[in-house]
Amino acid sequence: MKIKLMALAFTCCVVGAAQSDSKKIKEDFKPSTKNQPGKEYPQVNSQGYARFRIEAPAADSVRVSLGLGGRGGTKLEKGEDGFWMGTTEGPMDEGFHYYHVDVDGGTFNDPGAKNYYGSVRWESGIEIPAHDQEFYALKDVPHGKVEQILFPSPSTNTSRRAFVYTPPGYHKDQSKRYPVLYLQHGWGEDETAWSNQGHANLIMDNLIAEGKTKPFLIVMTYGMTNEIKFGGLRNFDIKPFQTVLVDELIPYVDQNFRTVADENHRAMGGLSMGGMETRTITMNKPGVFSHYALLSGGVYSPDDIKKEDVKLVFLSCGSKESPERIKESVAALKSAGYNAVGYISEGTAHEFQTWRRSLYELAPLLF
Amino acid sequence: MKIKLMALAFTCCVVGAAQSDSKKIKEDFKPSTKNQPGKEYPQVNSQGYARFRIEAPAADSVRVSLGLGGRGGTKLEKGEDGFWMGTTEGPMDEGFHYYHVDVDGGTFNDPGAKNYYGSVRWESGIEIPAHDQEFYALKDVPHGKVEQILFPSPSTNTSRRAFVYTPPGYHKDQSKRYPVLYLQHGWGEDETAWSNQGHANLIMDNLIAEGKTKPFLIVMTYGMTNEIKFGGLRNFDIKPFQTVLVDELIPYVDQNFRTVADENHRAMGGLSMGGMETRTITMNKPGVFSHYALLSGGVYSPDDIKKEDVKLVFLSCGSKESPERIKESVAALKSAGYNAVGYISEGTAHEFQTWRRSLYELAPLLF
Repeated sequence: MKIKLMALAFTCCVVGAAQSDSKKIKEDFKPSTKNQPGKEYPQVNSQGYARFRIEAPAADSVRVSLGLGGRGGTKLEKGEDGFWMGTTEGPMDEGFHYYHVDVDGGTFNDPGAKNYYGSVRWESGIEIPAHDQEFYALKDVPHGKVEQILFPSPSTNTSRRAFVYTPPGYHKDQSKRYPVLYLQHGWGEDETAWSNQGHANLIMDNLIAEGKTKPFLIVMTYGMTNEIKFGGLRNFDIKPFQTVLVDELIPYVDQNFRTVADENHRAMGGLSMGGMETRTITMNKPGVFSHYALLSGGVYSPDDIKKEDVKLVFLSCGSKESPERIKESVAALKSAGYNAVGYISEGTAHEFQTWRRSLYELAPLLF
Repeated sequence: MKIKLMALAFTCCVVGAAQSDSKKIKEDFKPSTKNQPGKEYPQVNSQGYARFRIEAPAADSVRVSLGLGGRGGTKLEKGEDGFWMGTTEGPMDEGFHYYHVDVDGGTFNDPGAKNYYGSVRWESGIEIPAHDQEFYALKDVPHGKVEQILFPSPSTNTSRRAFVYTPPGYHKDQSKRYPVLYLQHGWGEDETAWSNQGHANLIMDNLIAEGKTKPFLIVMTYGMTNEIKFGGLRNFDIKPFQTVLVDELIPYVDQNFRTVADENHRAMGGLSMGGMETRTITMNKPGVFSHYALLSGGVYSPDDIKKEDVKLVFLSCGSKESPERIKESVAALKSAGYNAVGYISEGTAHEFQTWRRSLYELAPLLF
């Protein structure tokens, strides 16, 4: 009996030690690169843990929405200095995450972090350093511009905003014309997402500097024309946005930028809801775009589209989404004779790291 | 005695009625134009009162920093629905205001409002409709662009960001060259301020559409190179920023935009700290700029500058600042033979409405 108890105690110790080892958090936390200037928190460590510190001395409860899935985020504990602190229970996926702070039942942002439009609100953002972060880093290479334009939209009776990435050199050689990728954000985001969260401009600058992609323009505009409501996606009507994009924005861009204004030099892509929009608009309007890209945004079946219209179908998602669905669709499209390419982002979910990597993979295949 | 008491009571009633009349708040509140999409609060009414509504059901205290001067902002009252509401004690000045929310001793932003970089943090913003708001409204006129550039800065060992306003038509007539205004933000703000808070691009679009100003470029960059700290302005060293501006940004702009690259076609202006920077740099570096503009940013004495270097000195401030100082300086400069123009913004203080109006007055005088 004594031996049995001893054995049990030993087993417990071993298990305990193993757990404590695997949970050991390295104290190499640094401010997130998405912090407001001069702000020390939130921080991230080399393992991907995130640590928060928020001042609210008289609050009863402070939680951060970021944390391991399904556990309601991270509960902060109040220190004697009036600051609430806490660390995620485990490492977070690499890349960019939206989050917010619950203070006594109200939804606020972390005063230390910069804000990014997502979930139909300006949210806090945090960056978990990724092993491949070099491809979207700000480097000492020639930089293109991100140009804010206000284009007339008779159908919505206003001037609408878009951002246009123009590659380095665009403003030097005035005889050169460029193909264009129309690139859409996801639900609850807006036309700022692909630059601010996605670093689309830096991805292109770096690819171009390495000679890995042809230079092209990227046009990013707001993909919703309906009133914005949670749950509104179910009744989403593509027509108003399709009109803005195809009948208003494309002619404006072709008139005001040096584009090659034909189907063969025009691509459309989008993430999540933007993929859904891409899929619907490319099916509704064959002959406008020749390269289609759905990033975590659904798939095509061979019957959806016609081979004479499409030079490339690019389908991608994170390995934590539904990679099998992408692979099956790409296989079916290939069997039917399409130039289809699938890409699975390893270790990422329905988040911007998946889409940054997707753009990095997509760009060299275009035009 | 009875009569005396009656008279007193009457007097009290009259005073009471007058007070209650003058304090009568019109219930024509509408969402602020600076709200996040779809958000109903904060609201403003036609008298300039601001009303806030913030959810924080378990909080003990919610205050908004905006309110009448010196009274610590506006204290919100908790309703049974868990939302805290409150209205400013009086009307606010016309135009844009920064504010934030104190929730149980912590500083947060209003989840209903968009964020603007000011006070060395991303703050909430609210817009009190101004009687003259048409001059910075988004209208159905040709729109210029706001182009984000990343320019190499060897002195700070990074790529720095600037925004360049290019007027409508800039990208059409490739033979035309343009003068440039370098326009600086205030302390605690950054290179986004003049577009986001100031609507500099819309002010120019509207002026150009009405034929009231020559088209020119506006370059807006970050005016601080030091570590950002409250109180850091006292030890502010202009040299690092002067190097970035004069030795790095100006040559980059002259190489990458179609500018008239000489002193006569180059202006510098700035608001508040940006005015201080303008004053110092124009004095340190005669021969670089020919038009100087200090918006709530100090004054020149005739001995500070030389008549052969300067075609225009523009000095402005709000009527609630120190207008006498501006008027005296302009008078002294004029007596000394300078082309000096003063402008006082009626009914505004050290805030963006003063600077929007100042730009509107300044632009037609330039070049």
